[in-house]
Amino acid sequence: MFELNDAVRALIERVRTLDAPDDVVKDATATINAVVESLDPYTYEGPYQQAQLRAPEDGQPSLRGDAPAEFFPYSPVVGPLNPLSPPVEMHFDGERLHGSVTLGAPYNGPPSMVHGGVIALIFDELLGALNVMHDLGGFTGTLSVRYERPTPLGQPLEMEAWIDRTEGRKVFPVGELRHNGVVTARAEGVFIRSELLPGRVESD
Amino acid sequence: MFELNDAVRALIERVRTLDAPDDVVKDATATINAVVESLDPYTYEGPYQQAQLRAPEDGQPSLRGDAPAEFFPYSPVVGPLNPLSPPVEMHFDGERLHGSVTLGAPYNGPPSMVHGGVIALIFDELLGALNVMHDLGGFTGTLSVRYERPTPLGQPLEMEAWIDRTEGRKVFPVGELRHNGVVTARAEGVFIRSELLPGRVESD
Repeated sequence: MFELNDAVRALIERVRTLDAPDDVVKDATATINAVVESLDPYTYEGPYQQAQLRAPEDGQPSLRGDAPAEFFPYSPVVGPLNPLSPPVEMHFDGERLHGSVTLGAPYNGPPSMVHGGVIALIFDELLGALNVMHDLGGFTGTLSVRYERPTPLGQPLEMEAWIDRTEGRKVFPVGELRHNGVVTARAEGVFIRSELLPGRVESD
Repeated sequence: MFELNDAVRALIERVRTLDAPDDVVKDATATINAVVESLDPYTYEGPYQQAQLRAPEDGQPSLRGDAPAEFFPYSPVVGPLNPLSPPVEMHFDGERLHGSVTLGAPYNGPPSMVHGGVIALIFDELLGALNVMHDLGGFTGTLSVRYERPTPLGQPLEMEAWIDRTEGRKVFPVGELRHNGVVTARAEGVFIRSELLPGRVESD
């Protein structure tokens, strides 16, 4: 399933930057439609939440470890099993959550820049996953993103997030997005803790 | 090209909710990799900004009219020529920008809900496109999203945005996301006007 998702990611990038004759486009379209049809019988038809939470065939999603991708395998940001995700790689060091990604043409906004909304999307996941790693998982109450300079497309980006403070059920995480060590955008979140979301299980 | 993008969208949804035997997954992976390889010679290799702004083969993107999709054909939110986009449909009534979309499994966050980051992504495009329609196009300075209740997956959603005020080069658009007429999230933006972005050309 990981290879299939990677293949679809490559296809998305190709199609986004395609400059091909009509017959090539028609052939590709027909082939992809045939693949979709061949997969129709195997579409998971249950409730969305079960599709979201069920285990990938090659292993249970782990609630241990230090990688949000294991908590959220179907996430549109970090999920290896969602073709929409770049995916962003995230790693928890016990206190802070670190991320890295290079975003290509599908994530383009203004010329040569990452789409501002994609940056907000990534920040929501970064702050939300940070909370989960701290056993403070909850729903986003408010998310505020400040764009300080252009975030370049096709360049390695780094991110870092930490918990500023908590107040009762409210958690206040903050995060930074950087290119070559220079902050291009900052985010502040107010999250509301919830038992509906999985907490982190400490390793033995 | 529109049909090809629609086919890839259908593939993304199928793969996101796939529950298939290994051989089916392997066959699909091989076929998709072959399509990607067949498209390699036709990948646009120029600067990202040109890939972003060049015309679709079946018509110049129009700077007239009332649909942001014509301004941003490669947008990850409204762009019909970007397989990542749902796409969100947006329509300008001369004062306010209206949007509609139904988001499926790839955009899932918490159980049965749209991912909060996807909501922020859509709001950034909604507010930014609103500005362009008012000839006030610019870059996002800050974006703040307040999540008031769950936004359901697989249900028709509506959105609406308008300009609250302007101050010099600053534009302050606001927007709402609704399900069945009830607001599920609100957004406020501060955008900085820029001549780097295309303005709207009035129809004759």
